[in-house]
Amino acid sequence: MNDRNPLEEENINEEIVDLGLASKDIVKGQRLMNKDGSFNGRRTGLPFWESFNFYHYLVGVSWLKFMLLVITGYVALNLIFALVYYLIGVDGHLIGVIAANEAEKFQEAFFFSFQSFTTVGYGRISPIGALASSIASFESLIGLLMLAIATGLFYGRFSRPISKILYSKNAIIAPFKDINGFQFRIANEQHSELIDVEIRVTMSKLVFESGTPVRKFFNLELEYTKINFFPLAWTINHPIDKDSPMYGMTKEDIDRSQAEWFILLQGFDDMFSTIVNSRSSYRYNEVVVGAKFDNLYGKDSSGRVTVELDKIDDYHEMELNKY
Amino acid sequence: MNDRNPLEEENINEEIVDLGLASKDIVKGQRLMNKDGSFNGRRTGLPFWESFNFYHYLVGVSWLKFMLLVITGYVALNLIFALVYYLIGVDGHLIGVIAANEAEKFQEAFFFSFQSFTTVGYGRISPIGALASSIASFESLIGLLMLAIATGLFYGRFSRPISKILYSKNAIIAPFKDINGFQFRIANEQHSELIDVEIRVTMSKLVFESGTPVRKFFNLELEYTKINFFPLAWTINHPIDKDSPMYGMTKEDIDRSQAEWFILLQGFDDMFSTIVNSRSSYRYNEVVVGAKFDNLYGKDSSGRVTVELDKIDDYHEMELNKY
Amino acid sequence: MNDRNPLEEENINEEIVDLGLASKDIVKGQRLMNKDGSFNGRRTGLPFWESFNFYHYLVGVSWLKFMLLVITGYVALNLIFALVYYLIGVDGHLIGVIAANEAEKFQEAFFFSFQSFTTVGYGRISPIGALASSIASFESLIGLLMLAIATGLFYGRFSRPISKILYSKNAIIAPFKDINGFQFRIANEQHSELIDVEIRVTMSKLVFESGTPVRKFFNLELEYTKINFFPLAWTINHPIDKDSPMYGMTKEDIDRSQAEWFILLQGFDDMFSTIVNSRSSYRYNEVVVGAKFDNLYGKDSSGRVTVELDKIDDYHEMELNKY
Amino acid sequence: MNDRNPLEEENINEEIVDLGLASKDIVKGQRLMNKDGSFNGRRTGLPFWESFNFYHYLVGVSWLKFMLLVITGYVALNLIFALVYYLIGVDGHLIGVIAANEAEKFQEAFFFSFQSFTTVGYGRISPIGALASSIASFESLIGLLMLAIATGLFYGRFSRPISKILYSKNAIIAPFKDINGFQFRIANEQHSELIDVEIRVTMSKLVFESGTPVRKFFNLELEYTKINFFPLAWTINHPIDKDSPMYGMTKEDIDRSQAEWFILLQGFDDMFSTIVNSRSSYRYNEVVVGAKFDNLYGKDSSGRVTVELDKIDDYHEMELNKY
Repeated sequence: MNDRNPLEEENINEEIVDLGLASKDIVKGQRLMNKDGSFNGRRTGLPFWESFNFYHYLVGVSWLKFMLLVITGYVALNLIFALVYYLIGVDGHLIGVIAANEAEKFQEAFFFSFQSFTTVGYGRISPIGALASSIASFESLIGLLMLAIATGLFYGRFSRPISKILYSKNAIIAPFKDINGFQFRIANEQHSELIDVEIRVTMSKLVFESGTPVRKFFNLELEYTKINFFPLAWTINHPIDKDSPMYGMTKEDIDRSQAEWFILLQGFDDMFSTIVNSRSSYRYNEVVVGAKFDNLYGKDSSGRVTVELDKIDDYHEMELNKY
Repeated sequence: MNDRNPLEEENINEEIVDLGLASKDIVKGQRLMNKDGSFNGRRTGLPFWESFNFYHYLVGVSWLKFMLLVITGYVALNLIFALVYYLIGVDGHLIGVIAANEAEKFQEAFFFSFQSFTTVGYGRISPIGALASSIASFESLIGLLMLAIATGLFYGRFSRPISKILYSKNAIIAPFKDINGFQFRIANEQHSELIDVEIRVTMSKLVFESGTPVRKFFNLELEYTKINFFPLAWTINHPIDKDSPMYGMTKEDIDRSQAEWFILLQGFDDMFSTIVNSRSSYRYNEVVVGAKFDNLYGKDSSGRVTVELDKIDDYHEMELNKY
Repeated sequence: MNDRNPLEEENINEEIVDLGLASKDIVKGQRLMNKDGSFNGRRTGLPFWESFNFYHYLVGVSWLKFMLLVITGYVALNLIFALVYYLIGVDGHLIGVIAANEAEKFQEAFFFSFQSFTTVGYGRISPIGALASSIASFESLIGLLMLAIATGLFYGRFSRPISKILYSKNAIIAPFKDINGFQFRIANEQHSELIDVEIRVTMSKLVFESGTPVRKFFNLELEYTKINFFPLAWTINHPIDKDSPMYGMTKEDIDRSQAEWFILLQGFDDMFSTIVNSRSSYRYNEVVVGAKFDNLYGKDSSGRVTVELDKIDDYHEMELNKY
Repeated sequence: MNDRNPLEEENINEEIVDLGLASKDIVKGQRLMNKDGSFNGRRTGLPFWESFNFYHYLVGVSWLKFMLLVITGYVALNLIFALVYYLIGVDGHLIGVIAANEAEKFQEAFFFSFQSFTTVGYGRISPIGALASSIASFESLIGLLMLAIATGLFYGRFSRPISKILYSKNAIIAPFKDINGFQFRIANEQHSELIDVEIRVTMSKLVFESGTPVRKFFNLELEYTKINFFPLAWTINHPIDKDSPMYGMTKEDIDRSQAEWFILLQGFDDMFSTIVNSRSSYRYNEVVVGAKFDNLYGKDSSGRVTVELDKIDDYHEMELNKY
């Protein structure tokens, strides 16, 4: 163990700007990146409609909400047109209506509306005269355009490339050769295979400039930053050597520096021939100092390699190297 | 301040060709790039149909124009088919028509047309005989093909990756360490996050070759050209050191050189797994010499970082360093 | 031939981690990569629904299975709705039904169902009253949404970029200049042209660490790793020089080391403006030691170059160089 | 002029393998690459169905052929179903038919078929009984699936990224500084803008190995290989210095060597956020030795830069530098 203080400004070798953050202004507080990779901050001062994108929203929303929105929209549009047919008068403008009272007239107008909107057009009820015909003609166009939009939305939702990367719950500091390493494990949850997977880890910690805490960002050197194939699991390892911003940091230093590690993974998805990415972060209280990950690999009866993904979080305690 | 003249040809270190422009031919005049990143020039000598792409036009046009074109096209196609039915004679070829005069006959033909085009086919009116049936059959096919095309257009419009980057209204020259820097600020207006954002700045200025002005292009070295994450705002900074083409330029030199700065930003859009780009430019009269941007960052009550995007243009005057 | 043992640990120069595999755990057994480039291993411990993606499955499945699923789904959905109409009672809710008994009533309900689902809506049978109309209205919506989904699935299946690379059945070790080379041949089976084709070959072999076999991975240096254009065929060649992990290996060494070569090819598909990739592998028993590939090239009567792809596997025996 | 022979094997510095061609086998004959960038060669020995991709064909074919195929397919499918209805017997299975003879019956079957296929379903004619209803139900499904496929095809045709790069008809050898340069001009014909345009030029020529001609390939060093923006036109220039494979070649040498230059351009299309490419080639007889391109640039009345693309081929003769 050397005797320089790893949290003193003068011991900082190299620093990067990241997250587009002016480092001085972000000192303490909540984590900067959520576990799912989204940024834990807020932009203010933008009008809602400037930053809101309807398509993005509908492609990104959950299936339950999406289907509720589709059905609600369908019913609402049909109600509006039903109201229009009812207001111009069912009697003179729709033929074939079977209705004993006003409520039934509205009901028939509603079902005529859906028959026009979906273009099913059974024909028991049909429009007569220019006004009703024009409205029905417009409604059918709207129905077809909605179908066109829905087609794009479904395709957009389905075909959106998503990486599902499983991260180990904790990062650990483990003995590595004759030094130690900062490590975490990842696996690909999806059936589609990832190629040319590249990973970058940025560490952020508080540094004390003559006593005042300032948040700084550092790229971590990794043992391997890229693999050609990624069918199973991968342990990412940052060797904590003399050039590491983690060099000499004890568990207490890590806590006091409010350290956070940002993970950025990029790979080529074989299924959709596109690059996908995944982000996540570990915070100081999610790092286990002095541990080693358990083995994931085995072999099945036919001699094929197996990997047990339910064990990805598992580790056991282990004495660290001293240096 | 050194005493070389920054506008003299012999003081130029390095130059690039950009915009595909023969630099001699573009001396004075309007800006080369509009604020929205489009090029402010004209190509002549190409037949209209060679360079016009109908799909590109319909995907790029405003929603209002697009919807007007869709509705106009729908009505126009229906009118054409209505005319055809009317001309072959409604009486012998359509059954179920209820019409007292020629105008009503045309009207019925028109509504039959839309019922075929949209495939709603109520059936009150239907074609009889080979001629009307064939035309209706063709019209339905056209209707379905139009639906197919509209679906693609809607999807093309929605899914087209668009970056919405907010640029500060002015670029500034601000003190930076013990020299000065050319700076501007950007922020991401969209909800989707950008990753691996890279920025390039090209400066163009008039240079005097034995008195004759010639426009030259230079890449500017930036303090940081790439960031991993871009959730908030980013101040781009070109340090004006001895190797800078801006070295030694006063406000008057900048004006006289009719300088223009071209910005090219590229990033990976997390939402659509594709690379998006944004371009813009600053012209000499949009540069404030001697200023510093105001702080954008704050913290909300729950400790989350906030950034106030409505302040992105704000700066205050500040004395420059002399060197 | 030198006298170092190419399977002894101390003679290993450089090693990579690949396939995300902890090298110690995979020693003997089946091949790691199948000929089609898929990984020959199993992930366990993931709930089925976590890793299953319905859209990926439907896009990747064979055309026969896909069409069977489409037709089965269509019939099944119609049967469900037919059952609903039948259960609420055909008599009070559908008009125009022509049925002498219960079976015919169900049959009419079934055909009304398909007429609503497909929106064909002939109108001989039509719903009457709120209940039947509501169900029909819902069924038409489901039908349109299924059309929307099917459209996306067809497009997804058709437009999915696929590379069809033909690999020679065997890799060979052939004389190359005054040394030998590890070679195999590839050709593009598709009509669309590939540009900027890049190839990487990783070799995996057992290495003996004080007698214990351990699987190690090595990148092979290739004579050419990239070509601009790839219209015909290409012989990939790894010169077996002193730095090669294959240096000094005899046929027996190759077999004993259970060697496997992983091929990763990437290229830009001209047709779809996207990067495609192809993977395959050769195992030790697929390597012919001492051979040369036959010529593929010829000229047709008009002077155009031809390449005979049915000869891509052909080789003849040839004495290797000794060194 | 030096006295080494530029066509002698021993004077070759560096060579690349390209086009995946064994260079010995391609000596004389036709050009290797057509002007449109397609390869002028043939692959044999592949079964037709192995290499044919229906979707690729329909996306790449001309609009006229595509529309003819769509209409033909529509009529053909309807005729098949009409035949089926006619063969099972119109009388017992379709109601509402108005037909005096067999021909009219077939005609009615045909129009019922199209009403089912397009889902217009007027309802004058409708199926009765299980057999006709089942066939109609199947026909409507086929109709909807065809619509789904057509939608994908239209979108695939429209959205396929296409670069339309205008190449000057001739390449020229022009004086450049105190040496000469091999030059050609390009411009972007499309309205969408290209960014990060990169160009590579490969030269191929016959070289005489002790009298026997062998075709060799060389990368040419360019003055600029990449530009950030490409709104107008760009003159590509290969300076013919001592390291150039064109060094010392006279017009006669160029002809005798049957030289061919392959152009590969890649750029990022702003409109579709995708990389597009363009290829072309110049052959020895398309190179003008001793010329200079005419100026394309001007300014319109409002001071905007203009470029006259109809002059892109224009050049005037000019004495070359001697060295």
